[in-house]
Amino acid sequence: MKVTLSSLDTCESSFTPLVVLELAQDVKEETKEWLKNRIVSKKEDGGAQLLFRPLLNKYEKETLENQNLYLVGASKITLLLGAEAIGLVKECNDNTMRAFTYGTRHNFKDFDDDNNDFLTMAECQFIIKHELENLRAREEKMIPGYPQAKLYPGKSLLRRLLTSGIVIQVFPLHDNEALKKLEDSWYTRFTLKYQPLDRIRGYFGETIALYFGFLEYFTVALIPMAVIGLPYYLFVWEDYDKYVIFASFNLIWSTVILEVWKRGCARMTYRWGTLVMKRQFEEPRPGFHGVLGINPVTGREEPLYPSYKRQLRIYLVSLPFVCLCLYFSLYVMMIYFDMEAWALSLHESSGSEWTSILLYVPSIIYAIVIEIMNRLYRYAAEFLTSWENHRLESAYQNHLILKVLVFNFLNCFASLFYIAFVLRDMKLLRQSLATLLITSQILNQIMESLLPYWLQKKHHVQVKRKVQALKADIDATLYEQVVLEKEMGTYLGTFDDYLELFLQFGYVSLFSCVYPLAAAFAVLNNFTEVNSDALKMCRVLKRPFSEPSANIGVWQLAFETMSVISVVTNCALIGMSPQVNALFPESKLDLILIVVAVEHALLALKFILAFAIPDKPRHIQMKLAKLEFESLEALKRQPSENIIEEKAPFTKEAKRENQMKLMAQNLKEDSREGNEEEA
Amino acid sequence: MKVTLSSLDTCESSFTPLVVLELAQDVKEETKEWLKNRIVSKKEDGGAQLLFRPLLNKYEKETLENQNLYLVGASKITLLLGAEAIGLVKECNDNTMRAFTYGTRHNFKDFDDDNNDFLTMAECQFIIKHELENLRAREEKMIPGYPQAKLYPGKSLLRRLLTSGIVIQVFPLHDNEALKKLEDSWYTRFTLKYQPLDRIRGYFGETIALYFGFLEYFTVALIPMAVIGLPYYLFVWEDYDKYVIFASFNLIWSTVILEVWKRGCARMTYRWGTLVMKRQFEEPRPGFHGVLGINPVTGREEPLYPSYKRQLRIYLVSLPFVCLCLYFSLYVMMIYFDMEAWALSLHESSGSEWTSILLYVPSIIYAIVIEIMNRLYRYAAEFLTSWENHRLESAYQNHLILKVLVFNFLNCFASLFYIAFVLRDMKLLRQSLATLLITSQILNQIMESLLPYWLQKKHHVQVKRKVQALKADIDATLYEQVVLEKEMGTYLGTFDDYLELFLQFGYVSLFSCVYPLAAAFAVLNNFTEVNSDALKMCRVLKRPFSEPSANIGVWQLAFETMSVISVVTNCALIGMSPQVNALFPESKLDLILIVVAVEHALLALKFILAFAIPDKPRHIQMKLAKLEFESLEALKRQPSENIIEEKAPFTKEAKRENQMKLMAQNLKEDSREGNEEEA
Repeated sequence: MKVTLSSLDTCESSFTPLVVLELAQDVKEETKEWLKNRIVSKKEDGGAQLLFRPLLNKYEKETLENQNLYLVGASKITLLLGAEAIGLVKECNDNTMRAFTYGTRHNFKDFDDDNNDFLTMAECQFIIKHELENLRAREEKMIPGYPQAKLYPGKSLLRRLLTSGIVIQVFPLHDNEALKKLEDSWYTRFTLKYQPLDRIRGYFGETIALYFGFLEYFTVALIPMAVIGLPYYLFVWEDYDKYVIFASFNLIWSTVILEVWKRGCARMTYRWGTLVMKRQFEEPRPGFHGVLGINPVTGREEPLYPSYKRQLRIYLVSLPFVCLCLYFSLYVMMIYFDMEAWALSLHESSGSEWTSILLYVPSIIYAIVIEIMNRLYRYAAEFLTSWENHRLESAYQNHLILKVLVFNFLNCFASLFYIAFVLRDMKLLRQSLATLLITSQILNQIMESLLPYWLQKKHHVQVKRKVQALKADIDATLYEQVVLEKEMGTYLGTFDDYLELFLQFGYVSLFSCVYPLAAAFAVLNNFTEVNSDALKMCRVLKRPFSEPSANIGVWQLAFETMSVISVVTNCALIGMSPQVNALFPESKLDLILIVVAVEHALLALKFILAFAIPDKPRHIQMKLAKLEFESLEALKRQPSENIIEEKAPFTKEAKRENQMKLMAQNLKEDSREGNEEEA
Repeated sequence: MKVTLSSLDTCESSFTPLVVLELAQDVKEETKEWLKNRIVSKKEDGGAQLLFRPLLNKYEKETLENQNLYLVGASKITLLLGAEAIGLVKECNDNTMRAFTYGTRHNFKDFDDDNNDFLTMAECQFIIKHELENLRAREEKMIPGYPQAKLYPGKSLLRRLLTSGIVIQVFPLHDNEALKKLEDSWYTRFTLKYQPLDRIRGYFGETIALYFGFLEYFTVALIPMAVIGLPYYLFVWEDYDKYVIFASFNLIWSTVILEVWKRGCARMTYRWGTLVMKRQFEEPRPGFHGVLGINPVTGREEPLYPSYKRQLRIYLVSLPFVCLCLYFSLYVMMIYFDMEAWALSLHESSGSEWTSILLYVPSIIYAIVIEIMNRLYRYAAEFLTSWENHRLESAYQNHLILKVLVFNFLNCFASLFYIAFVLRDMKLLRQSLATLLITSQILNQIMESLLPYWLQKKHHVQVKRKVQALKADIDATLYEQVVLEKEMGTYLGTFDDYLELFLQFGYVSLFSCVYPLAAAFAVLNNFTEVNSDALKMCRVLKRPFSEPSANIGVWQLAFETMSVISVVTNCALIGMSPQVNALFPESKLDLILIVVAVEHALLALKFILAFAIPDKPRHIQMKLAKLEFESLEALKRQPSENIIEEKAPFTKEAKRENQMKLMAQNLKEDSREGNEEEA
């Protein structure tokens, strides 16, 4: 039943270009030839069996620049076998989700041998990326023509080519027709409607679709808070009992929405197949280095780095450094407040126009310093995390996120905490909160999407003009598209987008009892944020490679932590308010004890709620149990001899097996890495 | 390769009796015949293919009582195939843990075709229990001879026989020789040494071995606390800064030990194979009732009960009832304190001898009332949980544990809380704590083990005398053993043993800064507790069926919750102490704020610690990842056609398949059931 690749034709007369490969300008012919050879040659010869051609034919080369661009595509059969290799999960005719295999392809919904719609374009590009990354060194000791770019058997060629600067970038092409359709149903018409998440997922992949899904969910979930918060602003309610009610609602609500999100997310990713999809065996990340050894999980040769060394680096260097930075950030904040007080006293003592301008100086300086510190810290965090030498990209990301998150949290909220709990000036707190929230939101949208979009458009016109000046005998549309897209910015992942939402959540929930209007502003912002983010994804940035994911990962934990902190802050704020203090005129002690008791009760309630709301809807649980049941069945039914296998050396047969071995799930590579899942 | 049972002889001339089946006295011959037939007949005829004989031969029947006892055994091949069916995990020759299959039996360590040591006796008995429970109704509409005992296709016969009272009990036999050896290495010699956990596991199974492992670990972990606590008693330190240090150490320590236990537990259960073992597909528990329908996970017919109804019963009846009971328990406690105060005032006003005796009356009454309430509540909780109609035994157990735990917690600690935080009488607190801890420990050991052991011994002598009075031509040893064991008490699971430890942990940690000596008493108690519990398991109670388990389940969560609560209580106690109050003579406010801040910091530290300590040691993680990797490989290698199978009707082939289907893991049957795993 199994179709081997060798029996298939690898060269089709025409192919849809899916991925672009940009080489450096001065790459040697020898290297180009070798690379091309490895990409197109058959699987059993260690190739990727993909389709590969230069963007420009030979005879055009003289006249045009951009001769170093190559297009990569794949035949249908390669894509389908690739889909099997990455463990893609698709819906079957009986409405269950199963891992796709070529042998059972006819059992899958919408599969048709004559039809190319079965795999989405994002999936095809992901498969090609996977095949390219899985091109591995065999006998080569180095990249031909580049003796300094060393190789060892099993090393991913593409990663070495990228780190050596021979390949500049690999990126997937936009599909202008599909993009247009997507845009039409997504953001070009300003009407209130849910986003076409399934379409977004089809075009950009699960990780990005999940971000937009979360953004939408979060916005809708904030509406009740905004609605309840509005009358506080409109009628200028100052009774603190009302604030208490609002804060309590807020706290319970934020727990509930985060729990319910998990359920919605599971429902979505089950439909998309990523909930069921076995996580791939992750390759060491490009920067990872170590002594060559045998990976105990896969038995393959790869660099190894002892975990205790990494732990030492984390706990003895990174942790103290982060603490130092946090201390420094607090120190700067204190200087700012001193300057502020000094400016105020100066202004009050002299009262001239000059000194009233001086009042703004500390804020401006502080804003600039914060921005500089943020940048510097980001670089330092990236350097440190990279120096910690994590084997997996996911571990690297988690450690980086943790570092950046803590620092950003402090930078954004430390001054608010100071105003709230040291200065105890609620008016100033409300003012600062509003200013910070609104300006950061407006600035973000402009800097992130609108300005780049405008620049992009200008550049587009220039390129168009250039292309029109060319003779007409080349494929001008494709040429134009590739040249245009290769200059676009690269999407660096959902990190910054989630961070924005995270800080917004902080502004809304940490001091919600002081400024109930924050939720309304957040909702307003998010309605436009959806559109500006969509614009950014569709028009400003290079199309990113799709990335399968089953949940929002460490962000779930981050949001939950924020909601725990907000219980503490809100209780403290209510306890400090003069209205509540007026209720206990004779005994501050009772007041504090009551506040502490209420806080503990709320925290306990939060944990009980989180415990009592199941993470997955019941019908998803049933389907997962069924899958588990069947996979156990399947394991039982296979001939027992296979279970213990000899380690086959590099025979031709073993090649394919080896290829497949890369796909397994390395459950918990680093002890720390696994933790965010459990939490 | 696969050996089918049909090709094997089911009748061996002699067999080792492993399990005893006791029928009711008046069971009809017809039913006995049918049951025997079903137990011994071949697998393909729907039998269990076990060995079965009456304890007494025909000609002995006239003279002896106990004619309703039957012995069950199994041939070696049945046991091995059963081991494959339950997914038993054993060590291979290459030191990896793998699911045993008959086909690959020679790859497993210590396997020898001529040798019976491969499976432990506990495992054999578990397999027989499994085979007996998996005897399922086919065409029968009822138990022959008992029209009121209805059956439906697929219903477990043994369960129906038990619920109809036809089978009185099924229990595994002790192995006196092995038991003697186990006892010798375990508790008969009073020397300080670790328990032979692997042997205990081999004899009693994993659940009980884990209890003793936890008991030992917990005792050893308490030693540092006991050692640090001793000088407080010896030198009568009253400086509260010292108490603060002790309490802080305690809090961090209790977090660390609970986290480290998880790691030790994973190491142990990996060695035993249960960490890797796929959880079996759980059958509906005996009391479960519902409308016959198709189980969506397995596709088998069984009673179904809608989950929303269960939720309604839990939240609308059980929850309010439990709250009411808790309220009532508090109310009784208040009456006790009132009585106490009344007795004291009476004694002080009159001062006679009569009234001084009266002083003890409230305590005695309260102790009796508490005991009565505990019993009543236990019955009520069992009734309610059974009425909630949980499908799985594990779900039933978890809900019962939760109910009983909350009530016991309140009953044991409410008076201490009242003394500590309302009366604020630290001397009385210390006194009550010591009294409660020491008396409960001594009483427990006597009531639980020593008294039953003494009664058991007396009964043993009687039985011996009776047997000696018989003629010598029957197998007197076996007869004596079976008759003796059938009268022994049944071990009701580890619940009460863990509960005892849990309450002890409460006494040690909740008020540790007031009574540092508690840890020392706990350590002393646990040293003897090991021995008395061991005595109970070996000599007082029926041998329990082995039960595979990979961790201590919901108890981990219970202990962790206790350690969180103890942070709060200890911080509050320290804040209330006069010594600390003396440090802040002018401002109580500052004191409270500092205490609250410290408490929050400690809680945060606890959570960070729990997060930072990986739940499984690195080498176990690696081994699990490798297994995962290999199982993925195995799934890939099997012919794709098998993946989607038709649902075969009741053909002979499908029989065996159906049999195997029962073994799968029903990951999260009830939404709530899964939660204790994630927590």
